Amino acid sequence: MSNPIHISLDAMGGDHAPEVIIKGAAEAKVRFPNLKFTFFGDENYIAPLIKPFVNIKNSNIIHTNEKVNPNEKPSIAVRKGTKTSMYMAIQYVKSGQADAIVSAGNTGALMAMSKIILRPIEGISRPAIAAYFPTMTGESCMLDLGANIDCDSKNLVQFAFMGQAFARIVMGIKNPSVSLLNVGEEEQKGHNSIKEASKLLKSLQDTINYKGFIEGDKISEGKSDVIIADGFTGNVSLKTAEGTAKLVTFYLRQALQSSLSSKIGYFFAKKSLELFKLQMDPRKYNGAVFLGLNGIAVKSHGGTDAYGFANAIGVAIDMVRFNFISDLRKVISKSNLNF
Amino acid sequence: MSNPIHISLDAMGGDHAPEVIIKGAAEAKVRFPNLKFTFFGDENYIAPLIKPFVNIKNSNIIHTNEKVNPNEKPSIAVRKGTKTSMYMAIQYVKSGQADAIVSAGNTGALMAMSKIILRPIEGISRPAIAAYFPTMTGESCMLDLGANIDCDSKNLVQFAFMGQAFARIVMGIKNPSVSLLNVGEEEQKGHNSIKEASKLLKSLQDTINYKGFIEGDKISEGKSDVIIADGFTGNVSLKTAEGTAKLVTFYLRQALQSSLSSKIGYFFAKKSLELFKLQMDPRKYNGAVFLGLNGIAVKSHGGTDAYGFANAIGVAIDMVRFNFISDLRKVISKSNLNF
Repeated sequence: MSNPIHISLDAMGGDHAPEVIIKGAAEAKVRFPNLKFTFFGDENYIAPLIKPFVNIKNSNIIHTNEKVNPNEKPSIAVRKGTKTSMYMAIQYVKSGQADAIVSAGNTGALMAMSKIILRPIEGISRPAIAAYFPTMTGESCMLDLGANIDCDSKNLVQFAFMGQAFARIVMGIKNPSVSLLNVGEEEQKGHNSIKEASKLLKSLQDTINYKGFIEGDKISEGKSDVIIADGFTGNVSLKTAEGTAKLVTFYLRQALQSSLSSKIGYFFAKKSLELFKLQMDPRKYNGAVFLGLNGIAVKSHGGTDAYGFANAIGVAIDMVRFNFISDLRKVISKSNLNF
Repeated sequence: MSNPIHISLDAMGGDHAPEVIIKGAAEAKVRFPNLKFTFFGDENYIAPLIKPFVNIKNSNIIHTNEKVNPNEKPSIAVRKGTKTSMYMAIQYVKSGQADAIVSAGNTGALMAMSKIILRPIEGISRPAIAAYFPTMTGESCMLDLGANIDCDSKNLVQFAFMGQAFARIVMGIKNPSVSLLNVGEEEQKGHNSIKEASKLLKSLQDTINYKGFIEGDKISEGKSDVIIADGFTGNVSLKTAEGTAKLVTFYLRQALQSSLSSKIGYFFAKKSLELFKLQMDPRKYNGAVFLGLNGIAVKSHGGTDAYGFANAIGVAIDMVRFNFISDLRKVISKSNLNF
């Protein structure tokens, strides 16, 4: 058996930390046994919680009393220094002791610290946050989801290459299509930064499968494997999708409870509707990836449960297994994006 | 009986024009009989199509051979001059002959021409596009949906006041809450323009019920009656919501057809699911409103059918009935937004 994949965990990050972090780790190890964890956080609190989970009870715990608070400004979290569980967990990847870090803590702080500790890959000026987006034909990936509120055309082009690499290496799509999120498909539409990025990507079409602009309503049709946006737009789009999915299931629940006949119908359709619920489950898509860094960092939703957190660990595992970082470095150095 | 409401129709605009325009007009008049239409377009084509609809067969037709094409740049459409059906239909409102114009044609051209012909209300530097957004508690309205790709803080504040007026006057909400769409609820989040707009709105809180920032996933919860965004973000958000709604119903249809048992379940639940379908029907929310002009202009979705087009006419009727323009003028002049 090859060396186990070693995941560094910020045990104190997230709404239900450390319980969900520990239970999620145990669940991830059931799915993927060749796994090893180091937990960062308050040992007195963590150690007794780990004990009942026999498959992870021998995990490494590195003690610290300090942690990043959920709504802390990233700049303040960074100023707290090197003793927070989040900082130490990232540092463990930097020093080569772990293969990836997963945290359900403060997104802004995690990105700020990851940038400082892991540093961007040469040729990338700004790392981005990427995540899966469910579609009618499977899954797409979308970035940036909030790391960079204002982006210029070069940032967007770099995101395009990072997204393409993720889709190819981690999602296993041979020649992933890439599109820029815009308000129309015509050339003259959108911000100047997008129009310029589109021109640049067209000039690079021998190295990227660029498909032009895509509108918000076409994302879920699966028209493009990779969707590129500035962090503001990407964040609003992804969150609007989450809210709309909840709205539709709310309407559906109302409809199915509205009459005796519909309740009978629900009884017969229940099993199939379970599958529907599974497809709609936001925990299934938990695990946002920080792309463009010299190390693997995955952000779990703060409010997720153990099942969701295990999925975030799963994303990190895939990136380690497919050797994502070294492949991304090759892609970026070859494509010469160091504008 | 009071004077009928007179609607000016661009009979040549939209994917299924003029058929859908005519049928939609007939349907609108069934719902709201005190209505009168003037159709602009090719008389030889339109006249025989109107004849079978007895309730509108005596409508006025003003002939023109020219029309705006669907993907024409707004600047080119404007340069075509005053002889297109769209231009003439708007002009009819300007001259006071009609109370409102409804078109399913090219959005950019309709906005550009409406601005030139109807002019912005004093105190408003940029008109915006608004539409209904379904929520768990009813409906909200959202603007801008694409008229202004780049917006400064003052534009956003003006949108907030226009949205508030629409929600109060047309939607009948006594003291509508207003929020700015952002990537987080904390003060330091988002573009500078949004942060400045938020400060301005806070300083105006005796004239506007401003609630702060709202994230994309909270829109559909109905947390705010009016959602304000720049035209780029608003467009992406609304279209993402449309796409997601389609995706979820796609999953649902798949699930209900997946087994014999689920098909039986569907049979029993069918009637209730019809209600669900109705709630999800995008035609129900058809009719985007141009706010901030000295006249009522409503844009119908280009691909809609007669039922959808009748709904767009319905939005125009509401604005006329509730005397929206003169009330909006009062709101804007009182709030002194002429920065």
